[in-house]
Amino acid sequence: MALTDIELAQKLTDAARDAILPLFRGDWEAETKADNSAVTEADRAAEAAMRAIIEKERPDDGIIGEEYGTRNEGAGRQWVLDPIDGTQSFVAGRAIFGTLIALNQEGWPVLGVIDQPVQKERWIGQIGEGTTLNGKPVKARPCPAVEGMSLATTSPHCFDAEQSDAWLNLVVNAYPKRPFPIYGGDCYNYAMLASGHVDCVMEAGLKVHDYAALVPVVEGAGGIMSDWQGNPLDAGSDGTVIALGDPARLEDVLAAMGSSELAPNVRLSKDTSILPSSGGFKFPPIGDE
Amino acid sequence: MALTDIELAQKLTDAARDAILPLFRGDWEAETKADNSAVTEADRAAEAAMRAIIEKERPDDGIIGEEYGTRNEGAGRQWVLDPIDGTQSFVAGRAIFGTLIALNQEGWPVLGVIDQPVQKERWIGQIGEGTTLNGKPVKARPCPAVEGMSLATTSPHCFDAEQSDAWLNLVVNAYPKRPFPIYGGDCYNYAMLASGHVDCVMEAGLKVHDYAALVPVVEGAGGIMSDWQGNPLDAGSDGTVIALGDPARLEDVLAAMGSSELAPNVRLSKDTSILPSSGGFKFPPIGDE
Repeated sequence: MALTDIELAQKLTDAARDAILPLFRGDWEAETKADNSAVTEADRAAEAAMRAIIEKERPDDGIIGEEYGTRNEGAGRQWVLDPIDGTQSFVAGRAIFGTLIALNQEGWPVLGVIDQPVQKERWIGQIGEGTTLNGKPVKARPCPAVEGMSLATTSPHCFDAEQSDAWLNLVVNAYPKRPFPIYGGDCYNYAMLASGHVDCVMEAGLKVHDYAALVPVVEGAGGIMSDWQGNPLDAGSDGTVIALGDPARLEDVLAAMGSSELAPNVRLSKDTSILPSSGGFKFPPIGDE
Repeated sequence: MALTDIELAQKLTDAARDAILPLFRGDWEAETKADNSAVTEADRAAEAAMRAIIEKERPDDGIIGEEYGTRNEGAGRQWVLDPIDGTQSFVAGRAIFGTLIALNQEGWPVLGVIDQPVQKERWIGQIGEGTTLNGKPVKARPCPAVEGMSLATTSPHCFDAEQSDAWLNLVVNAYPKRPFPIYGGDCYNYAMLASGHVDCVMEAGLKVHDYAALVPVVEGAGGIMSDWQGNPLDAGSDGTVIALGDPARLEDVLAAMGSSELAPNVRLSKDTSILPSSGGFKFPPIGDE
Protein backbone atom coordinates (compact mmCIF):
# COMPACT_ATOMS: atom_id res chain seq x y z
CA MET A 1 0.00 0.00 0.00
CA ALA A 2 1.34 3.40 -0.92
CA LEU A 3 2.51 5.67 1.86
CA THR A 4 0.53 8.84 2.59
CA ASP A 5 2.44 12.09 2.21
CA ILE A 6 2.77 12.36 5.98
CA GLU A 7 4.05 8.79 6.23
CA LEU A 8 6.53 9.48 3.47
CA ALA A 9 7.69 12.66 5.21
CA GLN A 10 8.23 10.66 8.41
CA LYS A 11 10.20 8.05 6.50
CA LEU A 12 12.38 10.72 4.89
CA THR A 13 13.07 12.33 8.25
CA ASP A 14 13.96 8.99 9.83
CA ALA A 15 16.43 8.38 7.00
CA ALA A 16 17.99 11.82 7.47
CA ARG A 17 18.33 11.23 11.22
CA ASP A 18 20.06 7.92 10.60
CA ALA A 19 22.53 9.64 8.30
CA ILE A 20 23.18 12.65 10.52
CA LEU A 21 23.32 11.30 14.07
CA PRO A 22 26.48 9.14 13.73
CA LEU A 23 28.32 12.21 12.38
CA PHE A 24 27.22 14.74 15.04
CA ARG A 25 30.39 15.93 16.84
CA GLY A 26 32.26 13.44 14.70
CA ASP A 27 35.74 13.55 13.30
CA TRP A 28 35.33 15.01 9.81
CA GLU A 29 36.28 18.25 8.10
CA ALA A 30 33.69 20.77 6.95
CA GLU A 31 34.23 21.78 3.33
CA THR A 32 33.49 25.02 1.59
CA LYS A 33 31.02 25.11 -1.28
CA ALA A 34 31.24 27.32 -4.36
CA ASP A 35 29.16 29.95 -2.54
CA ASN A 36 31.58 29.75 0.41
CA SER A 37 29.00 28.21 2.72
CA ALA A 38 29.95 25.13 4.70
CA VAL A 39 28.91 21.57 3.90
CA THR A 40 29.72 18.26 5.52
CA GLU A 41 29.36 14.63 4.61
CA ALA A 42 26.33 14.61 6.91
CA ASP A 43 24.50 17.09 4.63
CA ARG A 44 25.27 14.98 1.58
CA ALA A 45 24.46 11.62 3.14
CA ALA A 46 21.14 12.84 4.56
CA GLU A 47 19.98 14.37 1.28
CA ALA A 48 21.07 11.33 -0.74
CA ALA A 49 19.12 9.03 1.59
CA MET A 50 15.98 11.17 1.28
CA ARG A 51 16.22 11.46 -2.51
CA ALA A 52 16.56 7.69 -2.93
CA ILE A 53 13.31 7.17 -1.01
CA ILE A 54 11.39 9.83 -2.97
CA GLU A 55 12.63 8.48 -6.30
CA LYS A 56 11.32 5.04 -5.33
CA GLU A 57 8.07 6.03 -3.64
CA ARG A 58 7.07 9.04 -5.77
CA PRO A 59 8.90 8.73 -9.09
CA ASP A 60 6.74 11.42 -10.69
CA ASP A 61 7.22 14.05 -8.00
CA GLY A 62 9.91 16.68 -8.27
CA ILE A 63 12.79 17.28 -5.85
CA ILE A 64 14.50 20.56 -4.97
CA GLY A 65 17.50 19.76 -2.79
CA GLU A 66 20.10 22.05 -1.28
CA GLU A 67 23.03 19.78 -2.10
CA TYR A 68 22.01 17.81 -5.20
CA GLY A 69 19.75 20.20 -7.06
CA THR A 70 16.48 19.78 -8.91
CA ARG A 71 14.75 16.69 -10.38
CA ASN A 72 11.50 16.68 -12.42
CA GLU A 73 11.48 20.45 -12.48
CA GLY A 74 8.05 20.71 -14.11
CA ALA A 75 6.20 18.51 -11.62
CA GLY A 76 3.31 20.10 -9.74
CA ARG A 77 4.36 18.33 -6.55
CA GLN A 78 7.89 19.14 -5.37
CA TRP A 79 9.70 17.81 -2.32
CA VAL A 80 11.97 20.56 -1.02
CA LEU A 81 14.91 19.27 1.05
CA ASP A 82 17.45 20.94 3.29
CA PRO A 83 19.31 18.07 4.96
CA ILE A 84 20.95 20.31 7.58
CA ASP A 85 19.66 23.83 8.04
CA GLY A 86 22.10 25.47 10.43
CA THR A 87 25.29 23.79 9.26
CA GLN A 88 27.33 26.25 11.36
CA SER A 89 25.57 25.04 14.51
CA PHE A 90 25.95 21.41 13.41
CA VAL A 91 29.67 21.90 12.86
CA ALA A 92 29.98 23.62 16.25
CA GLY A 93 28.24 20.74 18.03
CA ARG A 94 25.11 22.72 18.91
CA ALA A 95 21.89 20.68 18.66
CA ILE A 96 19.77 23.53 17.30
CA PHE A 97 20.14 22.73 13.57
CA GLY A 98 17.40 20.88 11.71
CA THR A 99 16.43 18.79 8.73
CA LEU A 100 13.80 20.57 6.60
CA ILE A 101 11.35 18.80 4.32
CA ALA A 102 8.51 20.53 2.49
CA LEU A 103 5.95 19.38 -0.02
CA ASN A 104 5.17 22.20 -2.43
CA GLN A 105 2.07 21.98 -4.60
CA GLU A 106 2.19 24.32 -7.59
CA GLY A 107 4.87 26.24 -5.70
CA TRP A 108 2.93 26.57 -2.42
CA PRO A 109 4.22 24.73 0.67
CA VAL A 110 1.40 22.57 2.07
CA LEU A 111 3.33 20.16 4.30
CA GLY A 112 6.47 20.89 6.30
CA VAL A 113 8.81 19.11 8.71
CA ILE A 114 11.44 20.58 11.03
CA ASP A 115 13.41 17.78 12.65
CA GLN A 116 16.10 18.11 15.34
CA PRO A 117 17.84 14.71 15.27
CA VAL A 118 19.89 14.97 18.48
CA GLN A 119 17.06 16.18 20.70
CA LYS A 120 14.66 13.89 18.78
CA GLU A 121 12.16 16.66 18.20
CA ARG A 122 10.01 16.59 15.08
CA TRP A 123 7.57 19.34 14.15
CA ILE A 124 5.15 18.48 11.34
CA GLY A 125 2.78 21.07 9.96
CA GLN A 126 0.05 20.90 7.37
CA ILE A 127 -1.83 23.89 6.06
CA GLY A 128 -5.37 23.59 7.40
CA GLU A 129 -4.52 20.61 9.60
CA GLY A 130 -2.39 21.94 12.44
CA THR A 131 1.15 21.37 13.68
CA THR A 132 2.49 18.70 16.00
CA LEU A 133 5.71 18.20 17.96
CA ASN A 134 6.38 14.47 18.24
CA GLY A 135 2.72 13.86 17.56
CA LYS A 136 1.33 16.33 20.10
CA PRO A 137 -0.43 19.49 18.86
CA VAL A 138 1.43 22.77 19.41
CA LYS A 139 0.17 26.35 19.19
CA ALA A 140 1.93 29.65 18.66
CA ARG A 141 1.13 32.20 21.34
CA PRO A 142 -0.74 35.50 21.18
CA CYS A 143 1.34 38.68 21.31
CA PRO A 144 -0.41 41.90 22.33
CA ALA A 145 2.09 44.44 20.93
CA VAL A 146 5.46 44.93 19.27
CA GLU A 147 6.85 46.31 22.54
CA GLY A 148 7.75 43.30 24.62
CA MET A 149 7.72 40.89 21.66
CA SER A 150 10.61 38.40 21.59
CA LEU A 151 12.61 38.50 18.36
CA ALA A 152 15.06 36.06 16.81
CA THR A 153 17.36 36.01 13.81
CA THR A 154 20.32 33.82 12.89
CA SER A 155 23.09 36.27 12.03
CA PRO A 156 23.43 40.02 11.47
CA HIS A 157 25.58 39.20 8.44
CA CYS A 158 22.50 37.87 6.63
CA PHE A 159 21.30 41.45 6.21
CA ASP A 160 22.50 44.12 3.82
CA ALA A 161 22.65 47.68 5.16
CA GLU A 162 19.00 48.51 4.44
CA GLN A 163 17.76 45.18 5.80
CA SER A 164 19.93 45.65 8.85
CA ASP A 165 18.23 48.99 9.54
CA ALA A 166 14.82 47.31 9.28
CA TRP A 167 15.90 44.62 11.75
CA LEU A 168 17.35 47.18 14.16
CA ASN A 169 14.25 49.36 13.93
CA LEU A 170 12.17 46.37 14.93
CA VAL A 171 14.62 45.50 17.73
CA VAL A 172 14.42 48.93 19.34
CA ASN A 173 10.63 48.93 19.10
CA ALA A 174 10.40 45.44 20.65
CA TYR A 175 13.06 46.04 23.32
CA PRO A 176 12.88 49.76 24.12
CA LYS A 177 14.98 49.51 27.29
CA ARG A 178 17.73 47.04 26.48
CA PRO A 179 18.23 45.14 23.22
CA PHE A 180 18.07 41.41 23.90
CA PRO A 181 17.04 39.76 20.67
CA ILE A 182 17.99 36.12 20.18
CA TYR A 183 20.74 35.31 17.69
CA GLY A 184 21.68 32.00 16.10
CA GLY A 185 19.27 29.13 15.65
CA ASP A 186 18.27 28.95 11.96
CA CYS A 187 15.12 26.81 11.51
CA TYR A 188 15.00 26.00 15.22
CA ASN A 189 13.74 29.52 16.01
CA TYR A 190 10.67 28.93 13.81
CA ALA A 191 10.01 25.64 15.61
CA MET A 192 10.18 27.48 18.93
CA LEU A 193 7.76 30.07 17.54
CA ALA A 194 5.33 27.30 16.51
CA SER A 195 5.59 25.90 20.05
CA GLY A 196 4.78 29.29 21.61
CA HIS A 197 8.19 30.30 23.00
CA VAL A 198 9.23 33.01 20.50
CA ASP A 199 7.03 35.75 19.00
CA CYS A 200 8.81 36.81 15.81
CA VAL A 201 11.61 35.55 13.58
CA MET A 202 12.98 37.76 10.84
CA GLU A 203 15.56 36.79 8.22
CA ALA A 204 16.74 37.63 4.73
CA GLY A 205 18.68 35.89 1.99
CA LEU A 206 16.88 32.58 2.42
CA LYS A 207 16.47 30.08 -0.41
CA VAL A 208 13.32 28.06 -1.01
CA HIS A 209 14.86 25.03 0.77
CA ASP A 210 15.46 27.26 3.82
CA TYR A 211 11.90 28.57 4.18
CA ALA A 212 9.40 26.25 2.43
CA ALA A 213 9.15 23.74 5.30
CA LEU A 214 8.76 26.52 7.86
CA VAL A 215 5.50 27.83 6.41
CA PRO A 216 3.22 24.84 7.16
CA VAL A 217 4.83 24.39 10.60
CA VAL A 218 4.31 28.04 11.59
CA GLU A 219 0.89 28.49 9.95
CA GLY A 220 -0.38 25.09 11.12
CA ALA A 221 0.38 26.31 14.66
CA GLY A 222 -1.72 29.44 14.08
CA GLY A 223 1.11 31.80 13.14
CA ILE A 224 1.78 33.58 9.87
CA MET A 225 4.71 33.84 7.49
CA SER A 226 5.33 36.45 4.85
CA ASP A 227 8.05 38.29 3.02
CA TRP A 228 9.05 41.77 4.18
CA GLN A 229 6.25 43.31 2.14
CA GLY A 230 3.66 41.13 3.86
CA ASN A 231 3.12 38.79 0.89
CA PRO A 232 2.65 35.07 1.52
CA LEU A 233 5.65 32.86 0.73
CA ASP A 234 5.81 30.60 -2.30
CA ALA A 235 8.62 29.03 -4.30
CA GLY A 236 9.33 32.34 -6.02
CA SER A 237 9.61 34.58 -2.95
CA ASP A 238 12.56 36.95 -2.61
CA GLY A 239 14.13 35.33 0.47
CA THR A 240 13.06 37.94 3.01
CA VAL A 241 11.04 36.21 5.70
CA ILE A 242 8.97 37.22 8.71
CA ALA A 243 7.33 34.65 10.95
CA LEU A 244 4.86 35.76 13.60
CA GLY A 245 3.15 33.69 16.24
CA ASP A 246 0.28 36.16 16.29
CA PRO A 247 -0.94 37.09 12.78
CA ALA A 248 -2.62 40.20 14.23
CA ARG A 249 0.83 41.80 14.65
CA LEU A 250 1.88 41.67 10.99
CA GLU A 251 1.00 45.27 10.11
CA ASP A 252 2.55 46.54 13.35
CA VAL A 253 5.80 44.69 12.66
CA LEU A 254 6.00 45.95 9.08
CA ALA A 255 5.44 49.48 10.37
CA ALA A 256 8.10 49.10 13.09
CA MET A 257 10.63 47.85 10.53
CA GLY A 258 10.17 51.04 8.56
CA SER A 259 10.22 53.33 11.55
CA SER A 260 13.49 55.14 12.08
CA GLU A 261 12.09 57.21 14.94
CA LEU A 262 13.71 56.10 18.16
CA ALA A 263 12.30 56.83 21.54
CA PRO A 264 14.77 58.78 23.73
CA ASN A 265 15.11 55.88 26.15
CA VAL A 266 16.79 53.63 23.58
CA ARG A 267 19.96 55.73 23.83
CA LEU A 268 21.50 53.27 26.19
CA SER A 269 25.06 53.85 25.24
CA LYS A 270 27.06 56.72 26.62
CA ASP A 271 28.32 57.10 23.05
CA THR A 272 25.23 58.56 21.40
CA SER A 273 26.78 58.13 17.97
CA ILE A 274 25.99 54.44 17.98
CA LEU A 275 22.38 54.54 16.96
CA PRO A 276 20.64 52.25 14.51
CA SER A 277 19.56 54.98 12.14
CA SER A 278 23.12 55.51 10.95
CA GLY A 279 23.33 52.52 8.65
CA GLY A 280 22.87 49.25 10.49
CA PHE A 281 25.56 46.67 10.94
CA LYS A 282 28.56 48.04 9.09
CA PHE A 283 29.70 44.76 7.73
CA PRO A 284 29.71 42.81 4.50
CA PRO A 285 26.56 40.68 4.55
CA ILE A 286 26.80 37.02 3.62
CA GLY A 287 25.11 37.54 0.23
CA ASP A 288 26.11 35.66 -2.89
CA GLU A 289 29.43 36.09 -4.55
CA MET B 1 32.23 12.34 55.76
CA ALA B 2 32.64 15.76 54.20
CA LEU B 3 32.12 16.08 50.47
CA THR B 4 35.12 16.88 48.28
CA ASP B 5 34.86 20.09 46.28
CA ILE B 6 34.07 18.09 43.15
CA GLU B 7 31.39 16.10 44.95
CA LEU B 8 29.90 19.31 46.27
CA ALA B 9 29.93 20.85 42.79
CA GLN B 10 28.10 17.77 41.46
CA LYS B 11 25.54 18.06 44.21
CA LEU B 12 24.98 21.74 43.48
CA THR B 13 24.52 21.04 39.79
CA ASP B 14 22.07 18.24 40.49
CA ALA B 15 20.04 20.62 42.66
CA ALA B 16 20.05 23.28 39.93
CA ARG B 17 18.90 20.73 37.33
CA ASP B 18 16.05 19.63 39.58
CA ALA B 19 14.94 23.25 39.93
CA ILE B 20 15.30 24.16 36.23
CA LEU B 21 14.03 21.14 34.31
CA PRO B 22 10.36 21.25 35.40
CA LEU B 23 10.24 24.90 34.27
CA PHE B 24 11.86 24.49 30.83
CA ARG B 25 9.26 25.51 28.20
CA GLY B 26 6.88 25.97 31.11
CA ASP B 27 4.04 28.38 31.57
CA TRP B 28 5.55 31.34 33.43
CA GLU B 29 6.37 34.93 32.60
CA ALA B 30 9.91 36.21 32.33
CA GLU B 31 10.43 39.34 34.42
CA THR B 32 12.76 42.24 33.88
CA LYS B 33 15.45 43.01 36.43
CA ALA B 34 16.67 46.45 37.43
CA ASP B 35 19.37 46.20 34.76
CA ASN B 36 16.65 45.28 32.18
CA SER B 37 17.95 41.75 31.75
CA ALA B 38 15.48 38.89 31.98
CA VAL B 39 15.02 36.59 34.96
CA THR B 40 12.61 33.74 35.62
CA GLU B 41 11.54 31.74 38.63
CA ALA B 42 13.88 29.02 37.33
CA ASP B 43 16.91 31.29 37.86
CA ARG B 44 15.80 32.10 41.38
CA ALA B 45 14.86 28.56 42.37
CA ALA B 46 18.12 27.10 41.05
CA GLU B 47 20.32 29.64 42.84
CA ALA B 48 18.37 29.31 46.10
CA ALA B 49 18.77 25.53 46.00
CA MET B 50 22.53 25.81 45.44
CA ARG B 51 23.03 28.44 48.15
CA ALA B 52 21.20 26.33 50.73
CA ILE B 53 23.57 23.42 50.08
CA ILE B 54 26.72 25.57 50.26
CA GLU B 55 25.56 27.25 53.46
CA LYS B 56 25.12 23.82 55.04
CA GLU B 57 28.18 22.05 53.62
CA ARG B 58 30.67 24.95 53.58
CA PRO B 59 29.44 27.56 56.05
CA ASP B 60 32.77 29.41 55.97
CA ASP B 61 33.01 29.70 52.19
CA GLY B 62 31.77 32.76 50.36
CA ILE B 63 29.08 32.89 47.68
CA ILE B 64 28.81 35.25 44.72
CA GLY B 65 25.45 34.65 43.05
CA GLU B 66 23.86 36.35 40.06
CA GLU B 67 20.41 36.59 41.63
CA TYR B 68 20.97 36.76 45.41
CA GLY B 69 24.30 38.55 45.74
CA THR B 70 27.34 37.99 47.92
CA ARG B 71 27.78 36.12 51.22
CA ASN B 72 31.00 36.01 53.31
CA GLU B 73 32.63 38.53 51.04
CA GLY B 74 36.05 38.25 52.67
CA ALA B 75 36.39 34.47 52.41
CA GLY B 76 39.35 33.13 50.42
CA ARG B 77 37.16 30.44 48.89
CA GLN B 78 34.17 31.76 46.93
CA TRP B 79 31.50 29.76 45.10
CA VAL B 80 30.45 31.76 42.05
CA LEU B 81 26.96 30.86 40.79
CA ASP B 82 25.03 31.68 37.64
CA PRO B 83 21.90 29.53 37.82
CA ILE B 84 20.97 30.10 34.16
CA ASP B 85 23.56 31.61 31.84
CA GLY B 86 21.69 32.28 28.61
CA THR B 87 18.32 33.23 30.05
CA GLN B 88 17.22 34.45 26.59
CA SER B 89 17.77 30.96 25.16
CA PHE B 90 16.09 29.38 28.19
CA VAL B 91 13.05 31.63 27.72
CA ALA B 92 12.98 30.83 24.00
CA GLY B 93 13.04 27.07 24.67
CA ARG B 94 16.53 26.51 23.26
CA ALA B 95 18.57 23.95 25.22
CA ILE B 96 21.87 25.78 24.85
CA PHE B 97 21.80 27.69 28.16
CA GLY B 98 23.73 26.43 31.18
CA THR B 99 24.18 26.47 34.92
CA LEU B 100 27.62 27.85 35.86
CA ILE B 101 29.41 27.03 39.11
CA ALA B 102 32.96 28.10 39.90
CA LEU B 103 35.15 27.79 42.93
CA ASN B 104 37.43 30.82 43.20
CA GLN B 105 40.44 30.68 45.51
CA GLU B 106 41.78 34.13 46.35
CA GLY B 107 39.94 35.38 43.28
CA TRP B 108 41.27 32.76 40.87
CA PRO B 109 38.85 30.19 39.39
CA VAL B 110 40.24 26.70 40.08
CA LEU B 111 37.14 24.53 39.55
CA GLY B 112 34.34 25.13 37.06
CA VAL B 113 31.13 23.46 35.93
CA ILE B 114 29.03 24.13 32.83
CA ASP B 115 25.83 22.10 32.98
CA GLN B 116 23.15 21.82 30.27
CA PRO B 117 20.18 20.34 32.14
CA VAL B 118 17.95 19.40 29.18
CA GLN B 119 20.65 17.65 27.17
CA LYS B 120 22.10 16.29 30.42
CA GLU B 121 25.61 17.42 29.57
CA ARG B 122 27.97 18.37 32.36
CA TRP B 123 31.46 19.74 31.78
CA ILE B 124 33.70 19.87 34.86
CA GLY B 125 37.13 21.44 34.70
CA GLN B 126 39.91 21.75 37.23
CA ILE B 127 43.05 23.74 36.70
CA GLY B 128 45.87 21.23 36.40
CA GLU B 129 43.50 18.24 36.43
CA GLY B 130 41.73 18.30 33.06
CA THR B 131 38.14 18.66 31.89
CA THR B 132 35.44 16.02 31.53
CA LEU B 133 32.05 15.86 29.83
CA ASN B 134 29.82 13.49 31.79
CA GLY B 135 32.95 11.94 33.27
CA LYS B 136 34.82 11.43 30.01
CA PRO B 137 37.93 13.55 29.30
CA VAL B 138 37.57 16.18 26.56
CA LYS B 139 40.25 18.16 24.74
CA ALA B 140 40.16 21.42 22.84
CA ARG B 141 41.54 21.13 19.32
CA PRO B 142 44.62 22.63 17.71
CA CYS B 143 44.11 25.53 15.32
CA PRO B 144 46.88 26.31 12.84
CA ALA B 145 45.95 29.91 11.97
CA VAL B 146 43.41 32.70 12.41
CA GLU B 147 42.26 32.19 8.83
CA GLY B 148 39.83 29.30 8.93
CA MET B 149 39.29 29.51 12.69
CA SER B 150 35.68 29.11 13.82
CA LEU B 151 34.44 32.02 15.95
CA ALA B 152 31.47 32.39 18.26
CA THR B 153 29.87 35.19 20.24
CA THR B 154 26.45 35.56 21.84
CA SER B 155 25.15 38.89 20.55
CA PRO B 156 26.53 41.87 18.62
CA HIS B 157 24.75 44.11 21.12
CA CYS B 158 27.20 43.02 23.84
CA PHE B 159 29.87 45.15 22.15
CA ASP B 160 30.31 48.91 22.17
CA ALA B 161 31.47 50.51 18.91
CA GLU B 162 35.18 49.93 19.54
CA GLN B 163 34.66 46.37 20.72
CA SER B 164 32.46 45.73 17.74
CA ASP B 165 35.29 46.80 15.42
CA ALA B 166 37.64 44.39 17.20
CA TRP B 167 35.15 41.54 16.78
CA LEU B 168 34.56 42.37 13.11
CA ASN B 169 38.29 42.66 12.45
CA LEU B 170 38.71 39.17 13.83
CA VAL B 171 35.73 37.91 11.82
CA VAL B 172 37.11 39.11 8.49
CA ASN B 173 40.52 37.65 9.28
CA ALA B 174 39.02 34.29 10.24
CA TYR B 175 36.47 34.17 7.40
CA PRO B 176 38.10 36.08 4.54
CA LYS B 177 35.61 34.87 1.90
CA ARG B 178 32.24 34.89 3.62
CA PRO B 179 31.50 35.86 7.22
CA PHE B 180 29.95 32.89 8.99
CA PRO B 181 30.68 33.34 12.69
CA ILE B 182 28.37 31.61 15.14
CA TYR B 183 25.95 33.77 17.13
CA GLY B 184 23.96 32.94 20.27
CA GLY B 185 24.97 30.30 22.75
CA ASP B 186 26.35 32.03 25.87
CA CYS B 187 28.32 29.53 28.03
CA TYR B 188 27.51 26.66 25.68
CA ASN B 189 29.99 27.98 23.11
CA TYR B 190 32.82 27.63 25.65
CA ALA B 191 31.73 24.07 26.38
CA MET B 192 31.85 23.32 22.66
CA LEU B 193 35.34 24.86 22.53
CA ALA B 194 36.47 22.62 25.39
CA SER B 195 35.10 19.63 23.48
CA GLY B 196 37.02 20.57 20.32
CA HIS B 197 34.19 21.84 18.09
CA VAL B 198 34.80 25.63 18.18
CA ASP B 199 38.16 27.44 18.02
CA CYS B 200 37.54 30.85 19.55
CA VAL B 201 34.84 32.59 21.62
CA MET B 202 34.99 36.32 22.15
CA GLU B 203 32.68 38.38 24.36
CA ALA B 204 32.54 41.60 26.37
CA GLY B 205 30.51 42.96 29.25
CA LEU B 206 30.63 39.73 31.24
CA LYS B 207 30.37 39.63 35.01
CA VAL B 208 32.41 37.30 37.22
CA HIS B 209 29.49 34.86 37.47
CA ASP B 210 29.41 34.72 33.64
CA TYR B 211 33.09 33.86 33.13
CA ALA B 212 34.61 32.32 36.29
CA ALA B 213 33.31 28.78 35.65
CA LEU B 214 34.44 28.88 32.03
CA VAL B 215 38.13 29.27 32.86
CA PRO B 216 38.79 25.85 34.48
CA VAL B 217 36.61 24.11 31.85
CA VAL B 218 38.47 25.71 28.92
CA GLU B 219 41.95 25.57 30.44
CA GLY B 220 41.46 22.04 31.82
CA ALA B 221 40.76 21.00 28.22
CA GLY B 222 44.05 22.55 27.06
CA GLY B 223 42.68 25.89 25.92
CA ILE B 224 43.34 29.37 27.24
CA MET B 225 41.21 32.25 28.45
CA SER B 226 42.19 35.88 28.79
CA ASP B 227 40.82 39.38 28.64
CA TRP B 228 41.23 41.40 25.45
CA GLN B 229 44.70 42.49 26.52
CA GLY B 230 45.82 38.89 26.93
CA ASN B 231 45.77 38.93 30.76
CA PRO B 232 44.52 35.87 32.64
CA LEU B 233 41.03 36.17 34.13
CA ASP B 234 40.39 36.59 37.83
CA ALA B 235 37.53 37.96 39.91
CA GLY B 236 38.59 41.54 39.08
CA SER B 237 38.80 41.25 35.29
CA ASP B 238 37.12 43.87 33.12
CA GLY B 239 34.56 41.56 31.49
CA THR B 240 36.21 41.29 28.08
CA VAL B 241 36.86 37.63 27.38
CA ILE B 242 38.67 35.56 24.76
CA ALA B 243 38.68 31.77 24.86
CA LEU B 244 40.93 29.83 22.53
CA GLY B 245 41.17 26.10 22.04
CA ASP B 246 44.77 26.50 20.92
CA PRO B 247 46.80 28.77 23.25
CA ALA B 248 49.39 29.23 20.50
CA ARG B 249 46.94 31.49 18.64
CA LEU B 250 46.53 34.11 21.38
CA GLU B 251 48.97 36.65 19.99
CA ASP B 252 47.60 36.17 16.46
CA VAL B 253 44.04 36.74 17.61
CA LEU B 254 44.96 39.86 19.57
CA ALA B 255 46.77 41.18 16.50
CA ALA B 256 43.81 40.38 14.21
CA MET B 257 41.41 42.20 16.55
CA GLY B 258 43.48 45.34 16.17
CA SER B 259 43.94 45.03 12.42
CA SER B 260 41.71 47.31 10.38
CA GLU B 261 43.40 46.29 7.13
CA LEU B 262 40.98 44.30 5.06
CA ALA B 263 42.03 42.14 2.17
CA PRO B 264 40.27 43.14 -1.09
CA ASN B 265 38.35 39.86 -1.21
CA VAL B 266 36.32 40.68 1.89
CA ARG B 267 34.42 43.32 -0.06
CA LEU B 268 31.59 40.91 -0.65
CA SER B 269 28.84 43.44 -0.83
CA LYS B 270 28.11 45.39 -3.96
CA ASP B 271 27.76 48.35 -1.62
CA THR B 272 31.38 48.96 -0.71
CA SER B 273 30.39 51.47 1.92
CA ILE B 274 29.45 48.69 4.33
CA LEU B 275 32.84 47.78 5.64
CA PRO B 276 33.73 46.98 9.21
CA SER B 277 36.27 49.74 9.58
CA SER B 278 33.54 52.35 9.62
CA GLY B 279 32.42 51.84 13.17
CA GLY B 280 31.14 48.36 13.79
CA PHE B 281 27.56 47.52 14.66
CA LYS B 282 25.79 50.85 14.81
CA PHE B 283 23.56 49.95 17.68
CA PRO B 284 23.22 50.60 21.38
CA PRO B 285 25.11 47.80 23.12
CA ILE B 286 23.51 46.03 26.06
CA GLY B 287 25.81 47.70 28.60
CA ASP B 288 24.65 48.81 32.00
CA GLU B 289 22.17 51.58 32.52
